[in-house]
Amino acid sequence: MNAENNKRNLSMLMDFYELTMANGYYVKGFKDRWVVFDMFYRSNPDNGGFVISAGLEQLIDYIENLSFTEEDIAYLRSRSMFDEGFLNYLSDFHFRGTIEAVPEGTIVYPYMPIVTVTAPAIDAQLIETMLLLTINHQSLIATKANRICRQAGTSLVMEFGARRAQGPDAAILGARACYIGGAGATATVAADQLYGVKAVGTMAHSWVQFFDSEYEAFKAYAEIYPGDCTLLIDTYDIMNSGAVNAVRVAKEVLEPAGYRLKGVRIDSGDLAYFSKKLRKYLDDNGCEDCIIVVSNSIDEWLLSSLNMQGAKINSYGVGERMITAKSDPVFGGVYKLAAVRQDDGTFAPRIKISENPEKITNPGKKTLWRIYSNVTGYGYCDVLTLDDELIVDGEDFEVKCPEKPWKDITLTDFHAEKLMVTIFDEGKLVYKKPTLNEIREHVKKQLNETVWIEEQRLQNPHIHYTDLSVKLFNLKESLLESNHKE
Amino acid sequence: MNAENNKRNLSMLMDFYELTMANGYYVKGFKDRWVVFDMFYRSNPDNGGFVISAGLEQLIDYIENLSFTEEDIAYLRSRSMFDEGFLNYLSDFHFRGTIEAVPEGTIVYPYMPIVTVTAPAIDAQLIETMLLLTINHQSLIATKANRICRQAGTSLVMEFGARRAQGPDAAILGARACYIGGAGATATVAADQLYGVKAVGTMAHSWVQFFDSEYEAFKAYAEIYPGDCTLLIDTYDIMNSGAVNAVRVAKEVLEPAGYRLKGVRIDSGDLAYFSKKLRKYLDDNGCEDCIIVVSNSIDEWLLSSLNMQGAKINSYGVGERMITAKSDPVFGGVYKLAAVRQDDGTFAPRIKISENPEKITNPGKKTLWRIYSNVTGYGYCDVLTLDDELIVDGEDFEVKCPEKPWKDITLTDFHAEKLMVTIFDEGKLVYKKPTLNEIREHVKKQLNETVWIEEQRLQNPHIHYTDLSVKLFNLKESLLESNHKE
Repeated sequence: MNAENNKRNLSMLMDFYELTMANGYYVKGFKDRWVVFDMFYRSNPDNGGFVISAGLEQLIDYIENLSFTEEDIAYLRSRSMFDEGFLNYLSDFHFRGTIEAVPEGTIVYPYMPIVTVTAPAIDAQLIETMLLLTINHQSLIATKANRICRQAGTSLVMEFGARRAQGPDAAILGARACYIGGAGATATVAADQLYGVKAVGTMAHSWVQFFDSEYEAFKAYAEIYPGDCTLLIDTYDIMNSGAVNAVRVAKEVLEPAGYRLKGVRIDSGDLAYFSKKLRKYLDDNGCEDCIIVVSNSIDEWLLSSLNMQGAKINSYGVGERMITAKSDPVFGGVYKLAAVRQDDGTFAPRIKISENPEKITNPGKKTLWRIYSNVTGYGYCDVLTLDDELIVDGEDFEVKCPEKPWKDITLTDFHAEKLMVTIFDEGKLVYKKPTLNEIREHVKKQLNETVWIEEQRLQNPHIHYTDLSVKLFNLKESLLESNHKE
Repeated sequence: MNAENNKRNLSMLMDFYELTMANGYYVKGFKDRWVVFDMFYRSNPDNGGFVISAGLEQLIDYIENLSFTEEDIAYLRSRSMFDEGFLNYLSDFHFRGTIEAVPEGTIVYPYMPIVTVTAPAIDAQLIETMLLLTINHQSLIATKANRICRQAGTSLVMEFGARRAQGPDAAILGARACYIGGAGATATVAADQLYGVKAVGTMAHSWVQFFDSEYEAFKAYAEIYPGDCTLLIDTYDIMNSGAVNAVRVAKEVLEPAGYRLKGVRIDSGDLAYFSKKLRKYLDDNGCEDCIIVVSNSIDEWLLSSLNMQGAKINSYGVGERMITAKSDPVFGGVYKLAAVRQDDGTFAPRIKISENPEKITNPGKKTLWRIYSNVTGYGYCDVLTLDDELIVDGEDFEVKCPEKPWKDITLTDFHAEKLMVTIFDEGKLVYKKPTLNEIREHVKKQLNETVWIEEQRLQNPHIHYTDLSVKLFNLKESLLESNHKE
């Protein structure tokens, strides 16, 4: 298994309406009409303080490979609704647009764009589904994994979720996203082969049951893997059987051969209670360096509770609740039209109004800025401006908070950073993809250096300020008003 | 895109411990020691009455293709913990075991096996992860989709979830599972190409925003697709703008050309309120045959509420809550060792005890039966027996309910059905895979003919009886007791 022979043609993984609309643009003569779309989301999963953006690499791969085979064209023709000129156009299709995005691993906030696509309407529409799918999925899992890892502190979090993942990709790409979020290893071998997330694992209950006794099972394992021996001790009885047999193997098999028992794992029972009891038993029996690994429905809330109880745990195997983001398994990123290029070359802003106020979009071609306080160094707010506006360090800047429009806010004593980088420039990939370890370090660095600790807490985190420039705010107001008058 | 060129080698999508254990069995001379594993689950998602088993076809594909490339072997060798003899064995590996399973689309219940694997320990272990992954994922989604479709009644449910799915497979295989559960169409083009789930779709808000006015957008769409014109009417204002423009297009564009407005869709706002208001407006304006399609966070509970309010809706686009099974996104199927073949050829039963009583397994090689009442024709209970037991129609049969061991239960006046069929017989695929439509019909037939309506309701469904034969019950008791004495 390698990345190359697992490269699928996912071009047709799109909503059917992308094709009906694209055909419509073509038939109506808008094949070269450029538009601007923003991808953003509206609320942080689990009422958290932020999201870790992830999945950009898979989006890039998709766009680079986006093309339509003869078979695809034949399928579309069989639907008897697409123009032959359009099908011909598709058969020669390659993406012509410009994409800007925040780099993978960037901390992001609601309503601020993660990806902006400036492209012919057809191109922008055809990539919608996969853009949302890959960014939504991996951002969700990276964010969840980070919540779990923050509670695990310096203990190793191992991703154990493949068997409960929502399909093969969810297992493999999910392990990738967990690693971005802070997990240190995975059980999924393919994620190691394809992405270099180190795969680890020792034994299941079946190994223990296979042998005539637990002791024989442990002994056999210790003989084969003396240097890396972690024993699963809860198949029959944690303290009365598992722990006793583990220590016996340490003394009778490992230590005479010059090895130490590396670890014991429990996958059931009261993890706080048994971890403390086990720690004492191991220490009392000369296994002070034997680590305790636990698994079984771990998530950030259980970890927080284990921490408060003083559980003695060195490492966590985290399965279904991380790989599916069980507590909040949908990341609702959306992709909304923000502007349409006119015949004179300017981009006319567009707005979607909706009966639900939170679904109203920010119009126009825009720029996303992060504002850092010069006093603390931390990120103070994100600001969305129109793309002809500049925020200059050392110059005060006026913004509006959309939820508190009556307030005049002036930013002072800050430095500003443009968050987006160019990925594709008129169809050409101009971005050097970072390694997975670089992405993971990017996450760590932001959380250590520029993201308020108050935004990182589990409950009621500080809500990062996300503001609009006065000019953008006024544009939005005027579009709402003119629509209301119509 | 077709099934052939999208066939990935997923052999290495397994937990690392499958390989450490397999290597261990090999090194310890157990390469030809056969074992029995059962795959089963412990509780119905969403506190429902049953699960629809799905995903078997993908398991079969996996097992047929299970093999290790030179690259895979090189990766394993690089881990410096696998025996060269084992790596050599793997390089020539093909699955040698026997697999029995309930056919896809079978209604199943907790603790009753869905798949039973009788195979050499290595073979049985290597397929664990993908067996669980594929059955867990698709059973979860098929079951959730069926909950939603039961509430939708005769209205069409369209699967719209790709953008919120947990990875590409979750979108494509999820659409397959939704179809098994009762959805009638999907937005995901690839699911149509690969599995024949009809892909449908019309327009997004971006289509409406792209044009200078909503009317122009609707007019353009109606001109291109006059015979299949469903308009999205909530971009600006449902009643004051969208509905008015839709009717105007019906009168000015469609009807003069001999067509009718097929449908309108709303994706926001109060769906009950607006659907009724819309229905009246459409009827009053000569669009009695125009259907109303709604989307926006639909699930079985919202449908139940819409039904109670008398909403006027003809079709539902269901997205994130179905494709992720949002309310309960993990299906906890497990794979447990039940027996190990001894030198004399008999299978010695094995049990896993655990600190959590619900995690205790049913030992031995077993047979799963469904018992139908001769009076009602409905499924009365499922019974698990040892594999040398027979349940014969017309002969009373004694069972034990594990939760009420004090009760003696005698089954009378029934007919019994063995639920499992042989899929692989000592490595050879002997099962003719049904078509997706046959699987879907199998679900419908059971729900219409043999599953109590009381098991199908949304809240507090009847809990199907799942019993053990007296012989199996006694075996389990004796194994628990002998372990306790040790």
